[in-house]
Amino acid sequence: MKSCYTELSGGVCTPRDFLAGGIHCGIKAGASKRDLALVYSTKPCTSAAVFTTNRVEAANITVSRKHSRGGTIRAVIANSGNANACTGAAGLEAARRMAALTAEKLGIPAEETAVASTGVIGVPLPLEKIEAGMDALAASISASEAGQDAALEAIMTTDTRKKAAAVEFVLPAQVSPQTGETRPHTIRIGAMVKGSGMIHPNMATMIGIITTDAAVSAPLLDKALRRAVNRSFNRLTVDGDMSTNDMVLIMANGAAGFGMDAAVNIPIETEGPAYEAFAAALEGICITLTRQMARDGEGATRLLTVTVKGAASEEDAALLARSAAGSSLVKAAIFGADANWGRVLCALGYSGAASFNPEKTAVSFSSLAGSIEVCKNGGSVPFSEETAKKILLEEEIEIQVTVGEGDGEASAWGCDLSYDYVKINGDYRS
Amino acid sequence: MKSCYTELSGGVCTPRDFLAGGIHCGIKAGASKRDLALVYSTKPCTSAAVFTTNRVEAANITVSRKHSRGGTIRAVIANSGNANACTGAAGLEAARRMAALTAEKLGIPAEETAVASTGVIGVPLPLEKIEAGMDALAASISASEAGQDAALEAIMTTDTRKKAAAVEFVLPAQVSPQTGETRPHTIRIGAMVKGSGMIHPNMATMIGIITTDAAVSAPLLDKALRRAVNRSFNRLTVDGDMSTNDMVLIMANGAAGFGMDAAVNIPIETEGPAYEAFAAALEGICITLTRQMARDGEGATRLLTVTVKGAASEEDAALLARSAAGSSLVKAAIFGADANWGRVLCALGYSGAASFNPEKTAVSFSSLAGSIEVCKNGGSVPFSEETAKKILLEEEIEIQVTVGEGDGEASAWGCDLSYDYVKINGDYRS
Repeated sequence: MKSCYTELSGGVCTPRDFLAGGIHCGIKAGASKRDLALVYSTKPCTSAAVFTTNRVEAANITVSRKHSRGGTIRAVIANSGNANACTGAAGLEAARRMAALTAEKLGIPAEETAVASTGVIGVPLPLEKIEAGMDALAASISASEAGQDAALEAIMTTDTRKKAAAVEFVLPAQVSPQTGETRPHTIRIGAMVKGSGMIHPNMATMIGIITTDAAVSAPLLDKALRRAVNRSFNRLTVDGDMSTNDMVLIMANGAAGFGMDAAVNIPIETEGPAYEAFAAALEGICITLTRQMARDGEGATRLLTVTVKGAASEEDAALLARSAAGSSLVKAAIFGADANWGRVLCALGYSGAASFNPEKTAVSFSSLAGSIEVCKNGGSVPFSEETAKKILLEEEIEIQVTVGEGDGEASAWGCDLSYDYVKINGDYRS
Repeated sequence: MKSCYTELSGGVCTPRDFLAGGIHCGIKAGASKRDLALVYSTKPCTSAAVFTTNRVEAANITVSRKHSRGGTIRAVIANSGNANACTGAAGLEAARRMAALTAEKLGIPAEETAVASTGVIGVPLPLEKIEAGMDALAASISASEAGQDAALEAIMTTDTRKKAAAVEFVLPAQVSPQTGETRPHTIRIGAMVKGSGMIHPNMATMIGIITTDAAVSAPLLDKALRRAVNRSFNRLTVDGDMSTNDMVLIMANGAAGFGMDAAVNIPIETEGPAYEAFAAALEGICITLTRQMARDGEGATRLLTVTVKGAASEEDAALLARSAAGSSLVKAAIFGADANWGRVLCALGYSGAASFNPEKTAVSFSSLAGSIEVCKNGGSVPFSEETAKKILLEEEIEIQVTVGEGDGEASAWGCDLSYDYVKINGDYRS
């Protein structure tokens, strides 16, 4: 089901009653670089989260995973400059303290707080700097764009762009149990993410904080989040590495309501049109952010979308699309604006999809400059190299693959592989 | 079991009664570039081969796979400049013709001929050029070093170095069924390989031709080859892409014999000390070539070996070693001589090994300049960045990982990720 939602300029503070802020507490060198963020709902929330599947899990992930089980997270403290990973018992204690300090400052239980960390691995977290910054952090939060921007800036590492998005949509008519009134009402979802390298299926090194003023039960929030992440962040690949610190978290505070009256916001507690509308909008915002992340892949000069149609299943389509989007050789060809479709076919061949027959496969390259078919029935078709080059020199490239197996469809996102990727990662710690 | 074998300078013509040669037939532009090779045993052979697992399989692979089933391959024709992949029915017919032309020229059955191709995908193979070159090709073969070199040159693409190796070893005493004599005898194995990009576990775009004057039954040859490939080429990773054209083939012509009398060369037909000695020497030569390939990874400035000890099994050790050797972030750090052990730990964390506990893991960096422990019990240990830098600036780097799970050991090989990798692959076809 496609939802009708409107993209807004905004972020985590677009939904009602969410505050955000960020400060420089000293984890990052250079006094001008913000490194500590807070996002907070003034009302209780339901929540859901997905975390890294890496066996090397940062301390903050262990703490957040535990707190997240309650489904009532309403505050996230996040730092950049230090991943608090491979930091042993002291790291775990530091992550717990971050949650406790935040909870204390906001007057909420520690279990309603999540902790996000990103940065260098294996260096002890300078907890004393965070502790010293807590007053300033709490004072920095507001519902303003400035607060939202400060929070976003404070979670960035090698990101070169701020990545935020917001949507609003109207929920189908629901009857209010309080008033008996039947009226559609407007819901907002806002989000901010960081991440540009170490990005791969299963969403490596990204932090995603999503807010909504919908009222959604924790189990349905979890279901909608997993589906959205699976179709967006999990189909993004920058370099094949999966981080120790990934998390995507959503908090729903139910503050939307009919008109301005939050008290009558009807909770989404069963699957149906309201849930579907919410889940589709959540998926939409996650895809928007996925594209922003791919565009900001370390050293990226081009956004690459691979769309596979006609696969035996959505899973197969996703495997095929991710394999092509993740191939170093395809990525290097895109960097060179080289219509090397053989590399695409080759990457499809090792994708692991259950059904794939090269002889039923066609490949086209598309961009704003046009579209050109370069491979049909697994073989070459005559095409103008000049036209192909023109298409591939655009900033946003789509590789369209059709395989004749069924009606499974999926897209995956990535970027080209450039000199700068190597430069950025050759000496990250310096 | 460790074999005692001696490395010789040499290649496919080091074992007795193998001939090799190579010519320029015109597939590659530039009259000076050889592009067609032939390796041939003047005696009948037993043979074994392993091929790409990519679903997109080049036409030559289809033909060679079929012929290889007989276990009697004694000639390999190989071309560079064109992969004959994604070329449809015409491509398959061209591959068949290459085998037939070779067989005809040598006066052997077509089923005793294998075909190797490497180069650009999706472009029709110019069979007429190969056909026109057959006389010159047949005339070029000899048992000389020049012939061996010409063959090797003719299968290179982006390779910057010729990769060949030879070993000799003495088989444990065997009783000759003809003479009743008990005497150890000397066996030689020679090999040549090509491959520098698109290299990944399951040995992407490589061609390996191995010759031996041992007499080994086809089933045991197959067993020894699979073990050797699994412990060498399959543990090499350059960029995570798997080619459509991989093959490694071994031909055993039994020409070694006691003294100079080939007639009394005793066949290895059962497992035992003779088989073990042969298999170990074969594994040794494959590892030597694997290291040569890693060192020549596209754009590589450093050879990276990752050795894992103390894993629950050899399989786990291999998964862990390959994951670290294949991580773009680890590779970029090695390029930058940056002792970023957190990236190593992170890559171990997503390896998929059945047993892995970061808290029992230690990491050291080693080279000719020394060795330094950088991580213990999954956390940082104080180390001199200066010393680490000195170690990492050497050409051959080893990352030594110890995990406390058992006594499984494995090595994997790779290289750093440099600007030049991107340059080489950004416009390969031009």
